[in-house]
Amino acid sequence: MENFSYCTPTRYLFGRGVEDQVGKLTAELGASRVMVVYGQGSVVRSGLLTRVIESLTDQDIMVETLGGVKPNPEDDLVREGIAICNANAIDAIVAVGGGSVIDTAKAIAAGARYDGDFWDFFCGKAVVQDALPIGVVLTIPAAGSEGSGNSVITKKEGKVKISIRTDYWLRPKFALLDPELTFTLPPHQTAAGIADMMAHIMERYFTPTKDVVVTDRISEGLLKAIIEEAPKVIAHPHDYEARANIMWSGTLAHNGICGCGRKEDWTSHAMEHELSAVYGVTHGAGLAVVFPAWMTYMAEHNPVKIAQFARRVFRVISTDDYAAAIEGIERLRAFFKSIGLPTTMAELGISDPDIPLLVERLHRNKGEVLGVYLPLTAKETTEIYQLME
Amino acid sequence: MENFSYCTPTRYLFGRGVEDQVGKLTAELGASRVMVVYGQGSVVRSGLLTRVIESLTDQDIMVETLGGVKPNPEDDLVREGIAICNANAIDAIVAVGGGSVIDTAKAIAAGARYDGDFWDFFCGKAVVQDALPIGVVLTIPAAGSEGSGNSVITKKEGKVKISIRTDYWLRPKFALLDPELTFTLPPHQTAAGIADMMAHIMERYFTPTKDVVVTDRISEGLLKAIIEEAPKVIAHPHDYEARANIMWSGTLAHNGICGCGRKEDWTSHAMEHELSAVYGVTHGAGLAVVFPAWMTYMAEHNPVKIAQFARRVFRVISTDDYAAAIEGIERLRAFFKSIGLPTTMAELGISDPDIPLLVERLHRNKGEVLGVYLPLTAKETTEIYQLME
Repeated sequence: MENFSYCTPTRYLFGRGVEDQVGKLTAELGASRVMVVYGQGSVVRSGLLTRVIESLTDQDIMVETLGGVKPNPEDDLVREGIAICNANAIDAIVAVGGGSVIDTAKAIAAGARYDGDFWDFFCGKAVVQDALPIGVVLTIPAAGSEGSGNSVITKKEGKVKISIRTDYWLRPKFALLDPELTFTLPPHQTAAGIADMMAHIMERYFTPTKDVVVTDRISEGLLKAIIEEAPKVIAHPHDYEARANIMWSGTLAHNGICGCGRKEDWTSHAMEHELSAVYGVTHGAGLAVVFPAWMTYMAEHNPVKIAQFARRVFRVISTDDYAAAIEGIERLRAFFKSIGLPTTMAELGISDPDIPLLVERLHRNKGEVLGVYLPLTAKETTEIYQLME
Repeated sequence: MENFSYCTPTRYLFGRGVEDQVGKLTAELGASRVMVVYGQGSVVRSGLLTRVIESLTDQDIMVETLGGVKPNPEDDLVREGIAICNANAIDAIVAVGGGSVIDTAKAIAAGARYDGDFWDFFCGKAVVQDALPIGVVLTIPAAGSEGSGNSVITKKEGKVKISIRTDYWLRPKFALLDPELTFTLPPHQTAAGIADMMAHIMERYFTPTKDVVVTDRISEGLLKAIIEEAPKVIAHPHDYEARANIMWSGTLAHNGICGCGRKEDWTSHAMEHELSAVYGVTHGAGLAVVFPAWMTYMAEHNPVKIAQFARRVFRVISTDDYAAAIEGIERLRAFFKSIGLPTTMAELGISDPDIPLLVERLHRNKGEVLGVYLPLTAKETTEIYQLME
C-alpha cells in the first residue's frame, strides 16, 4: 500500500426533498451573495431552479444566475461566470445540475479568487490555493463532481479537454442528493452516467500497487452494487430505491475512497476525452467503448488485476488469468449492452475513426507515456483505439 | 433506503512516518497551547510521546500532558483533563493512543468548552455544541474513534459505560495512521481490535432497512478484507501491508460510511458494555462472545440478513436462510477462535455469570427495549446472554 492523504469534508444530505435545505446550508457557509449555475433549461422547466432560488432568497441571500452550461463545458462560460462574480461581489456558488455544471462552478470558484486567467490552473501554470465555497444540488449521478476535488473543462480553441484535481479547495462544502430529481433522466443519459461512475472506480482499481485489499474490496463492492441496480433504473426510472443506490454509488465512485493507498491509472479517461473532443460523443458512452478495449489489451499484457475483477465482480471461475480476464471483459461488454450502451466506435456513431489524429492529440495533450497499470506510448494507444473498431 | 446526513471532515494521513506531521498539522489548526493525552506508558517507553512533543514544540507550540488513560476510560480523568485545559488556556488536544485515549480526549474537548459538568452530555442532559479541536496519532486499530464523532466513557460510580455520538464536534480534525506503530501490539490486543472493528460494521449491517445495496456491499467488502488480513497480522506482527489494511479497516468500520442510509442496531455493543463493566473484560474479546450469540438468536427469529452475511462474507451456499445463518455463525466463531479470541463466557474467564444482574443493568442503563433489527426486552436479552454460556 502507498502512503496517502485523504480528506472529504463535503457534507452530504441524501434523500427525498433535501434540495429544500439549500438556502439554510448556504446561509450556514456565511454567504449572502450567491451565483446559481445551471445547464440548458431542464432545471428551469422542472421548477427546480425556482425552488432553489426561493430557498436562497428565503434566507435573505442575493442571487445571480448563470445558465447555459453544456456537456463538455467550455472555458468561455467560465470566464463569463468569473466576471459576474467579480462584478457582484459573489461570496458562494451553488451548482444545480450534473458534472458539467458543477465543474463549471468549480472553475469559476477558483478563477474568482485568482488574479490571472483561470486556465492557468488547467494548463499547469498555477495551482488552486483559494476558491469561493461551492454547494451542489445534484440532478445527474455520473461525474461524481459533487464529492470530488476535480474539475474538467474544455478549451474551445483546439478543443483541449483537461482535468484538474485538488485535495481540498474544489471539494463542495455541501452536496444535496435527492434521488427523485433523477427520475426524469432519459435511459441513455442514465446509462452513460453508470458507465462513467464505473470507470471512476476502475481507473483506480487497475493499479500496479499491491496489497490494497481494503480499497479493492470496497471498489468491488461498489461495482457489484451498480451492476445489480443499473438494470432496475433503466427498466423502472421511478424506482426510488434503485435510483438512490445508483446516486450514492456515483458519489463514492469519485470522492477518493476507491483510490486510497494506490497509484491510479486514468488512461481510459484520457483516451475518451479525445473521442469527446473530436467526435462530440457523450463521455459515459465513450467510456463504455474505451474501457473494454483497454482491458482487452491488458488481458494480453498484464492480466492479473483484470482477472481479479472478472472473478470477484462477475464471478468468473476460470483459474487461468488470461481466460478469466477475457471472460470478465465479455461480461462487462454484455452488461453495457444490456443497459443500452455502445461498445464499439461504430455503435458510438463513429464509422471511420481517424485514429492517428486521436493518438496524436492524446499524447500532445497528456504526454508521451500514459498510465501506470501498464504505461503506454503511441504504439500501444493506437492498438487500443483499433480494438474499439 | 433512509434519508441521511454524512460528513467526515477528518484529514487522514496514512503511512510510514506520518506521525512526524503532528506538529505541522496542529499548527495549521491555529493552535498554540496543546494538551497531549496518552495511556499507560507504552508510548513513553517506545519514544513515540517524545517524538510527538518534539514535533509540536518544533512549531513553537506549548505542550501540557495528561497520561494514565486506562481501558474503559473513566470520568475522573476527564475532569482532571478539563481542569488542565481551563488552567492553561489549552486550544487543541492531541490524543496519542487507541480508542480509550481518543475518547477521553474527546470528552475533555467537549467539557472544556461547556459551563456545566461534562457528564451532562453522556446522561442526556446536554448536547455537544462546541469542542476544542482534536488531532490523533493512532496506535491501536480497533475503536475507530480516530474517524468517528463518538466517545465512550465509564462513570466510576456504578460503572455506567455510556456512548455518545455527534455528527460534527467530536470528529478529529486530523488522524495520523502509521501501521508501523501497531507492529508491537500483542496478539490478544490485535485480535480484540479486529473483533471490535468487525462489530462496528455488523451493528450497522444487521438492520431492518431494505435496499441499502451500496452500504451493504461496502460493509461486506470491508468484512472480507478484515477476515483475509487478520490471520496475517496475528502470524506476522511486522507484516506492514497486512497491518496497513487492518488499520484502515478499523477507521472505515466506524467513520459512518457503513451506516449511510439505514437504521443501526448496537444491541451487541450495549450487552458487551455490561460484561466490561461487571467483569472487566476487554471490549473486543467480549464482542467476540456476544455477537455470535446475538446472531444465533436472530437466526431463529429473523434470519434473512444473517443469511446474507453468511453467503456473501463466508460464501455459505445453503439456500435455506436458517441453515445458511447457522453455518455463517459457525464460520464466524471459527474465525474468532483462529485468531485466539474467546467465543463463550467461560473462555472469557466468566465461569459463573450473573445473568440477572447483567440484564438488569443493561435495561436500566439502555432502556426497556433495545435494538432495531429485532427489538429486544429483558426476556430476549436474558436468552441471548444464556447463549454465551
